[in-house]
Amino acid sequence: MREHGGNLDLAQQRFGGRAEDWIDLSTGINRLPYPVGDIAVHHWHALPSRSEIEALHRAAQHAYGTSAPVVATGGAQAAIQLLPQLAPRGRARILAPTYNEYAPLLSAAGWEVEQVRELDALAGANLAIVVNPNNPDGRCHARKDLLALLPRVDRLVIDESFADAVSELSLASDAGRPGLLILRSFGKFYGLAGLRLGFAIGDAADIAKLTAASGPWPVSGAAIAMGCRALRDDAWASATSARLARDSVRLDEMVQRQDWRLVGGAPLFRLYETPDALAAQEQLARCRIWSRVFTQQPTWLRLGLPGSEGEWARLAEVLAR
Amino acid sequence: MREHGGNLDLAQQRFGGRAEDWIDLSTGINRLPYPVGDIAVHHWHALPSRSEIEALHRAAQHAYGTSAPVVATGGAQAAIQLLPQLAPRGRARILAPTYNEYAPLLSAAGWEVEQVRELDALAGANLAIVVNPNNPDGRCHARKDLLALLPRVDRLVIDESFADAVSELSLASDAGRPGLLILRSFGKFYGLAGLRLGFAIGDAADIAKLTAASGPWPVSGAAIAMGCRALRDDAWASATSARLARDSVRLDEMVQRQDWRLVGGAPLFRLYETPDALAAQEQLARCRIWSRVFTQQPTWLRLGLPGSEGEWARLAEVLAR
Repeated sequence: MREHGGNLDLAQQRFGGRAEDWIDLSTGINRLPYPVGDIAVHHWHALPSRSEIEALHRAAQHAYGTSAPVVATGGAQAAIQLLPQLAPRGRARILAPTYNEYAPLLSAAGWEVEQVRELDALAGANLAIVVNPNNPDGRCHARKDLLALLPRVDRLVIDESFADAVSELSLASDAGRPGLLILRSFGKFYGLAGLRLGFAIGDAADIAKLTAASGPWPVSGAAIAMGCRALRDDAWASATSARLARDSVRLDEMVQRQDWRLVGGAPLFRLYETPDALAAQEQLARCRIWSRVFTQQPTWLRLGLPGSEGEWARLAEVLAR
Repeated sequence: MREHGGNLDLAQQRFGGRAEDWIDLSTGINRLPYPVGDIAVHHWHALPSRSEIEALHRAAQHAYGTSAPVVATGGAQAAIQLLPQLAPRGRARILAPTYNEYAPLLSAAGWEVEQVRELDALAGANLAIVVNPNNPDGRCHARKDLLALLPRVDRLVIDESFADAVSELSLASDAGRPGLLILRSFGKFYGLAGLRLGFAIGDAADIAKLTAASGPWPVSGAAIAMGCRALRDDAWASATSARLARDSVRLDEMVQRQDWRLVGGAPLFRLYETPDALAAQEQLARCRIWSRVFTQQPTWLRLGLPGSEGEWARLAEVLAR
């Protein structure tokens, strides 16, 4: 398994404690999640029905502001796993550094993979990948720049896993144009990563292919129940977006007294340049706060946002030491 | 979407009623499910960890009586979706009639697909598929016959989705032999189809390929929590197996007064030959009991087993009319 955040089992093996003792800031998963609430028993017992899955798709279209074809998948990751099946293998270009599943997955499927540093360098690719906002550095691309790129590649995948709280960046409303495929994560913004729910939004042909590759029951009954509820809760989404914007500033201010520099971030995580990320991770881990480091970038430390005031206080205390 | 049981939304569209008014016997899903119980909050919020997924794999090995490599998937169906990726396309042979996803899925992936009627006719295939016991007709194959077939094909997939209650049929303990791949469904026997959990068991190379194709978080936190609990509950499994065996006989006896003939069945469903399956389906549906018919076999009616005594009574009443 490749290096990922959320690997709290490793933190426990190295530093001890039970899972519930830890504040896991190693991911960009919202720590004040959408309330789980009741799940009707039939969602556990019965196969998800076609009409339930369609209701989930309509809820996603509502939340993401699109009328383009949608398919629900077991997380954005499940959609990523299917990308190599969308077209015959060819040349993939990935705007890097970014989420570390794309390159090895496409390489393993026989694609020629090139990681490039600028948007313009994606032109000419059969498959171009842009994570917007980007993980882990928060780099953003304007809608007009991405739309200008679209005719210069065969297929443009925009991974909007972290776009919920910055919806002005989203190209979901442009989905349906040939060659444009948008990936969305449900679990991060709604704080329900264990549910395994995400979406692909695109033109009818691509979504038909992804639907066939996902099979008749691509997500669980619980994912349908909670997705239908949460994705229609506009008040919760806008309050959460506002809070995450405030909390991003709060975290940046809190670490100012450290010898850390903000590299960038999205509303669910912040990336800091530190003198020694492993040392910083260990300092936090001794107080049961888990963070994300990057083998390839030994100065980078990524922190998710604390949730409750208790979590903020504990982080402040550790940083003040 | 291809024709499947569990399509209660269609039943409601045609015959009315709310989902909870219906007794859905159109699938082979246990109607007295394993109790859902509590699911710890972190299973909703956090990404499934590597150690949790490994614990689930160990629970599956325990339940299925194997020490071979295992990978959890979003239902047996999710494993089926990945079969075309196991080897370069070639000649697939399927013991038919059977579960109707195999043939179109392999055809669409460019395999040459042949449906054969006898086990022996599978010999020579690059990929041979046997559902054991078979859905929908309950046909069974002895372990020794399947093991004798193994060296005569490149890869033998045994779909044991309905084998839980007839574990003497299972080849799970033989898994690990090169070319043998066993698929298991969690949702049917445990009555939790909405959870989307299944397993593939095989040799290390095949399981490594399926693991890579499934990605780092192939199943939900709830599936891990419930799978770990249910798959270790030997007492529940053996009591349920005994009940399903008794109830299969009970259903066969109950329909004797109809002009129906038992074609075959597994402990979770029974297949009857009727003078007119659509008419029989409609008779049951008017009393909100849903059943499975087969376009290709207009006399076949498949019934799952009722659960509660109330369900048995309602079925008896409808059949007595």
